[in-house]
Amino acid sequence: MRGGPARLVGRGQGLAESRVPGVARPERPRHGSGALPGPAVPALPRRLHLRQEERHPLRAAHRGPAQSVAILLYLARKYKVPDHWYPRDPQACARVDEYLAWQHTTLRRNCLRALWHKVMLPVFLGEPVSPEMLATTLAELDMALQVLEGKFLQDKAFLIGPHISLADLVAITELMHPVGAGCQVFKGRPKLAAWRQRVEAAVGEVLFQEAHEVILKAKDSQPADPSLKQKMLPKVLAMIQ
Amino acid sequence: MRGGPARLVGRGQGLAESRVPGVARPERPRHGSGALPGPAVPALPRRLHLRQEERHPLRAAHRGPAQSVAILLYLARKYKVPDHWYPRDPQACARVDEYLAWQHTTLRRNCLRALWHKVMLPVFLGEPVSPEMLATTLAELDMALQVLEGKFLQDKAFLIGPHISLADLVAITELMHPVGAGCQVFKGRPKLAAWRQRVEAAVGEVLFQEAHEVILKAKDSQPADPSLKQKMLPKVLAMIQ
Repeated sequence: MRGGPARLVGRGQGLAESRVPGVARPERPRHGSGALPGPAVPALPRRLHLRQEERHPLRAAHRGPAQSVAILLYLARKYKVPDHWYPRDPQACARVDEYLAWQHTTLRRNCLRALWHKVMLPVFLGEPVSPEMLATTLAELDMALQVLEGKFLQDKAFLIGPHISLADLVAITELMHPVGAGCQVFKGRPKLAAWRQRVEAAVGEVLFQEAHEVILKAKDSQPADPSLKQKMLPKVLAMIQ
Repeated sequence: MRGGPARLVGRGQGLAESRVPGVARPERPRHGSGALPGPAVPALPRRLHLRQEERHPLRAAHRGPAQSVAILLYLARKYKVPDHWYPRDPQACARVDEYLAWQHTTLRRNCLRALWHKVMLPVFLGEPVSPEMLATTLAELDMALQVLEGKFLQDKAFLIGPHISLADLVAITELMHPVGAGCQVFKGRPKLAAWRQRVEAAVGEVLFQEAHEVILKAKDSQPADPSLKQKMLPKVLAMIQ
């Protein structure tokens, strides 16, 4: 890998910027086998929580999960991460930008819907999803996966080329949503499966598993409290429309 | 305005990159009153058509309208347009990125749906849209406009701050879709209406009108040929889902 390895920043601890440029917490190395020292890049953008408003220009007003891409780009620029993450070359950079723009209405939407329609709505929120609706959702996910593999990945090592980029990080975190719901997104897709292995190796297996620990337990969700359901349901339905 | 004025590139002529950095076609000045010489920036990203594959890294595979944002960023970088369009300052740049990420699933989606549900589906394609569906679409558009005005624009001159940026260009081209369908998107929104005037003045009134000439005639659409309808309908429904 050019320019240094990836290091993911873990979840659930309020990923303030102060943690991003630093090396891993000493008590638990945040890298897997083969990883070398290098700047950290967050891999769970949807879970980014910045501790203080002044630490990030987008902290003031929460305007939805799309902020995650902007935060990722901001951190990559601010901490001057190795070039392969978000290349200075205009053409390579355009390919990352293209993926990041494409995924909002396609892969991200479909991964999120698959998770909620398959598990979170019926099990966690006790809201039935018709078999027809679920089938449509999974068919749309399948189409998005085809584009991911056939149009973006093709025969390359990573989505943009021979090196891992922010596009791969954003893509893998989305794919872990349906995986967490029990969908076999890599089955019958050897190229995508091999790519997943390369991404996991690039960021380090231990950290990869840690970063996705919560989402991979989605299928074991327990029913939510009725009052929580009442509060969450309208927001969830708006989010996955 | 800092760093020079905007100049939009018109529609419908194959907006090859070679036109972007250049000055307006001599036979028709591409700027309105008050405009000063300066680099051109395309304003109708969805209509960008690049003449030769090698001229743009994203030309090889068409992967949907999301490419427009990546193309816009590419052109801004390649031709080193004045800083205000896509600032080098990480915080200001993050605000542009945030808007560009936000709009995919919100304003852009709702503007597109409003255009098709109100005019293009029932009139152009002869496909009825129920009053309930149209009402829902317009209510969702209204919510997105509230966020655009209340969370992004606020009391600033432009979406990101005192200077026009790519965020304003992308936003105004989206808003022209429901305007073209006869929606009064600026009515009762004085801040948004004043912003629209500022954007129009910044890019030049003549060019602004020329750039939106086709979309502003949407409400006068004539019914399409039945064979064209059959071909277009599935693609349209997928596009506006």
